[in-house]
Amino acid sequence: MSRSVLRTSDAWYVLTDAGAVRVDTSATTTRELLADRAAVDAAASSGGPAVPVDELALVSPVTAPCRVVAQMTNYESHIRDSNMDPATVPLTFFRKSSGSISGPHADVVRPAHVRFLDYEVEIGLVIGRDLPVGTDVTAGDLTDLVAGLVITNDVSARDVQLPKTQFYEAKSYPTFTPVGPVLLLLDAGEFARFGELRLRLWVNGSVRQDSTVADMVYQPLEALQALARFQQLQAGDLLLTGTPGGTALKAPARPIELIGALLPPHVKWKTFFRRQAANPDYLQDGDVMELAIGTPDGALDLGRQRTVVRWAR
Amino acid sequence: MSRSVLRTSDAWYVLTDAGAVRVDTSATTTRELLADRAAVDAAASSGGPAVPVDELALVSPVTAPCRVVAQMTNYESHIRDSNMDPATVPLTFFRKSSGSISGPHADVVRPAHVRFLDYEVEIGLVIGRDLPVGTDVTAGDLTDLVAGLVITNDVSARDVQLPKTQFYEAKSYPTFTPVGPVLLLLDAGEFARFGELRLRLWVNGSVRQDSTVADMVYQPLEALQALARFQQLQAGDLLLTGTPGGTALKAPARPIELIGALLPPHVKWKTFFRRQAANPDYLQDGDVMELAIGTPDGALDLGRQRTVVRWAR
Repeated sequence: MSRSVLRTSDAWYVLTDAGAVRVDTSATTTRELLADRAAVDAAASSGGPAVPVDELALVSPVTAPCRVVAQMTNYESHIRDSNMDPATVPLTFFRKSSGSISGPHADVVRPAHVRFLDYEVEIGLVIGRDLPVGTDVTAGDLTDLVAGLVITNDVSARDVQLPKTQFYEAKSYPTFTPVGPVLLLLDAGEFARFGELRLRLWVNGSVRQDSTVADMVYQPLEALQALARFQQLQAGDLLLTGTPGGTALKAPARPIELIGALLPPHVKWKTFFRRQAANPDYLQDGDVMELAIGTPDGALDLGRQRTVVRWAR
Repeated sequence: MSRSVLRTSDAWYVLTDAGAVRVDTSATTTRELLADRAAVDAAASSGGPAVPVDELALVSPVTAPCRVVAQMTNYESHIRDSNMDPATVPLTFFRKSSGSISGPHADVVRPAHVRFLDYEVEIGLVIGRDLPVGTDVTAGDLTDLVAGLVITNDVSARDVQLPKTQFYEAKSYPTFTPVGPVLLLLDAGEFARFGELRLRLWVNGSVRQDSTVADMVYQPLEALQALARFQQLQAGDLLLTGTPGGTALKAPARPIELIGALLPPHVKWKTFFRRQAANPDYLQDGDVMELAIGTPDGALDLGRQRTVVRWAR
């Protein structure tokens, strides 16, 4: 049976019908907690004292430092938003700094030099065991290779990301990877329901993103096979699997993009972002983001993340 | 005075006039060695038994795992090769897997799925102390923030890099970051001579790259200031500072690029690489790469790296 693990600054908890029960473990990192899964199961069936989840000050259930690897344009709906062709978009990864990880209810801070802040709801895979480069990954490996799932928001500074072309900096500022609340530890066989997961993101109560994994281009098996060619992974590392359509950023229509190609890149981007200034969907000071991921029947439920946007001055 | 540190699989050495003298240290990582600088100085002045450097089987003096961060297009000559404008190219970083680090005389292996393998000689900065995100970096910090310099080769699979747009995978395969032979530990004041460094790379004895740091756009101070906005660094981490012109890859001429912009990306790249097949400068099976970095007077000398290219089948 899957377990919903929560974390505060000084303890781990597991969700039960009665509330959150503290896990008796010396683990201080996610890697260590995964190695002490028995303690999670014991707490869940202990009937020990339970506290209401609302009373816990939750932090990210994925601890830093860890590797944070992310997949680029991996949902058909987002690929179309980006003016690309789902049939030919390559399986592509980039890195995020794990210093960008923040809690499920922490503020998301827009740095003073950033203007166009965007959201991206993504399923995060929490790696369950070491994966050396050169490993042959098969479907049967997914059960222990993917220990659990988390909600992540791949927050993006679009005016940094697009002109620089490499996504690393624009997605790595502090608070740009809210994670949680739940680390859903999967049991054997439960990964088979991955394809039923539905991802939703609201800004100030209005839905912006709402898709299922059916829309995903490169599934976790293929992604992990590709990663194993060049990137060692360890238990506790985090793989973000891409976002569906509905972000504030939409690529310019093809004719406008072609005119842009005639311009030097810095002129092209200046023109593009002048136009984007009229786009009301970028995140404003005080905006509330809510994110939810789960199966329709609630069997897999990653909880609900709620963060508030703050503009640094 | 600067110290030239070498490493074998089981020991550290420092270069003296008499040869390589073993360092009496328990350090097993570069981070630990930097914390034991006194042992390096003691070995250098000990008059202890020296062995000829040729007799040492050298490995990378930068140990993995560590962070490997790299600067994109950072020399005017390379930016022109890439058909970009040095006046407007942004300061941009990407990540490499530290699993790509290999020794200064190890083979560079082209994976079976790669066709267009390229070289990039780069000065590597070895970070000397922790740099938390949000740190204000000043010129005075460079002395301890940059503990030393190494030769690096930012080996690149161009047919992976360009279609994927994110550089991470194409530069992260095993053996894609040969490092060394020398880790040149700098003394206070010696960093001032950084601007005099000359970088050269030969393939089969013919010079391909030959530039000085005068050609560099974003100097280390500016790069570290920018990194401190989003990426924590720790002692032993590695920052690659970009490559000068002369790589096998040259961007298509502007008119051809504009026609390419009219095509879907996968067609554009297919056409581009069909043309590149006639370019004899990409690395062939058995090619010998030699790299050297130093000041003209030899005061700063990072040694000579020599690797052989092997094509995996």
